[in-house]
Amino acid sequence: MANYVFGVDVGGTSVKMGLFDTEGNVLEKWEIPTRTENNGEKILPDIAASVKEKMEQRQLAKEDVAGVGIGVPGPVEKSGIVHRAVNLGWAELNMKEELAALLDGMRVEGGNDANVAALGEMWKGGGQGHKNLVAVTLGTGVGGGIIINGEIMTGSTGAGGEIGHIHVEDDETEACGCGNFGCLEEYASATGITRLAKRALKASDKDSVLREGEVSAKTVFDAVKAGDELAIEIAKQFGDYLGKGLGVISGIINPEIFVIGGGVSKAGEILFDYIKPSFERTAFRGSQDVIFALATLGNDAGIYGAAKMLL
Amino acid sequence: MANYVFGVDVGGTSVKMGLFDTEGNVLEKWEIPTRTENNGEKILPDIAASVKEKMEQRQLAKEDVAGVGIGVPGPVEKSGIVHRAVNLGWAELNMKEELAALLDGMRVEGGNDANVAALGEMWKGGGQGHKNLVAVTLGTGVGGGIIINGEIMTGSTGAGGEIGHIHVEDDETEACGCGNFGCLEEYASATGITRLAKRALKASDKDSVLREGEVSAKTVFDAVKAGDELAIEIAKQFGDYLGKGLGVISGIINPEIFVIGGGVSKAGEILFDYIKPSFERTAFRGSQDVIFALATLGNDAGIYGAAKMLL
Repeated sequence: MANYVFGVDVGGTSVKMGLFDTEGNVLEKWEIPTRTENNGEKILPDIAASVKEKMEQRQLAKEDVAGVGIGVPGPVEKSGIVHRAVNLGWAELNMKEELAALLDGMRVEGGNDANVAALGEMWKGGGQGHKNLVAVTLGTGVGGGIIINGEIMTGSTGAGGEIGHIHVEDDETEACGCGNFGCLEEYASATGITRLAKRALKASDKDSVLREGEVSAKTVFDAVKAGDELAIEIAKQFGDYLGKGLGVISGIINPEIFVIGGGVSKAGEILFDYIKPSFERTAFRGSQDVIFALATLGNDAGIYGAAKMLL
Repeated sequence: MANYVFGVDVGGTSVKMGLFDTEGNVLEKWEIPTRTENNGEKILPDIAASVKEKMEQRQLAKEDVAGVGIGVPGPVEKSGIVHRAVNLGWAELNMKEELAALLDGMRVEGGNDANVAALGEMWKGGGQGHKNLVAVTLGTGVGGGIIINGEIMTGSTGAGGEIGHIHVEDDETEACGCGNFGCLEEYASATGITRLAKRALKASDKDSVLREGEVSAKTVFDAVKAGDELAIEIAKQFGDYLGKGLGVISGIINPEIFVIGGGVSKAGEILFDYIKPSFERTAFRGSQDVIFALATLGNDAGIYGAAKMLL
């Protein structure tokens, strides 16, 4: 019987890997570099080699392992087809088939990294006990993963759960990385909060600790906790946008829980104080009975979720 | 082998019923009144009696029938539990279990009427050939149904797909029926279009055919087709809101197709000309490859979708 499973999370510079038992205990974690040269042609062979090496080290036979789950930064269809993963150098390829072939037919499941991380948070993180979950990652950008009845909502072309690009502002003049104007990511990511802060500092004469030193999502929320008025205004703007975005998601998806992760979430539950007012004002009332929770797995969410895809 | 299936669509005044073969051909359609008195306690027994009567007429045995599917106006959980269906007088009840008991253990599946209608449009209507579909009903209100991998997305409390209550306008002063301000329904429903038209007529001095006679979604789009400038402005407002709403849905759900139905959709494909500009401006670009299609089953979508739930 298969008692082991591998979880792989491919990033632009390194590949995180984990060996788990089927209960979800991580037995070992390691990293290998992501070799993106030549359109990333080495990435899957490197992963396969590392899996095989680990199996040899631990004297695991193929039948001891449920398979290998893999998350990558790009849209992944249910079939395993990846449509361009720019950070990896990949054009279209069937990741699932190719990796399975490199692993002598072992079972492989694949998904988008944000979606896979959402599954990880459901399994062993902030979303435990729930099967309908929306994970929101407030990092450099805003990522999202949607779990419906315990399964990743992939979307028809693998682009499901792109909640960072919900349109929330008609009057934005700076473009989002995606090319549109007024995406949630422009206000709710770490970068977005910094931008809101710089705008506020420029537009206001108010005293603020933010006028000295670095302006970042972290310093903004530290200032909020210290009672800084201008920082509180910035947090209100952030929360207004994010609450409206989550409100829309709530009416469409009707989840049980939002799990908020990423660097910005290190500010803690104080975030919810700023998100909830606009959420409660704008979300469909029949879908407002949602839990707000913090993610707990940090950067390991991806390997957990990848492993869970096989179980 | 079961060659037949019943589809039931419960409305506030009448219950539409259909007997189908398992290929999806409707063999017979009929209606019975919806008796909402005494908290709607007669509704399910009336449906059961009508099903049994039809089976007797046609000399169908229980094993000839795959089951009975039922759509109702209210949130329905996967388990069949309905949380308040105000138009039927129902408080919480397990519709699936109760109807199955009244039908001597026949198989019953149930869902929210808008979700079930979406399934009907996927099966035999404007969404044929697609498994990831969002149905949008532009009627008195704006209803929605979301189909993921061929299955209804119910949501955790049965409120999934409430797209009429996506927040699209911060500056609205009139409340939506749901109690919030600025819901999509306030601009994209038949009632919403009429409201936009009345506001526009008041705010402008422009000549318009809409100044004579009735102002409705129909007369607005008739005037649009006749080249009426003010009507075109109104259609642009309508399309701007709806395109933004569908853009948000697209980024979250990543569907293959939007199927637009309801009374407003009688205006035809001209609607898409007004929806697409704001959709293309605001939707996540990786999710913009979506088909816009008109619903084709009209009021029969509900019985088709209800039948399909069993197959």
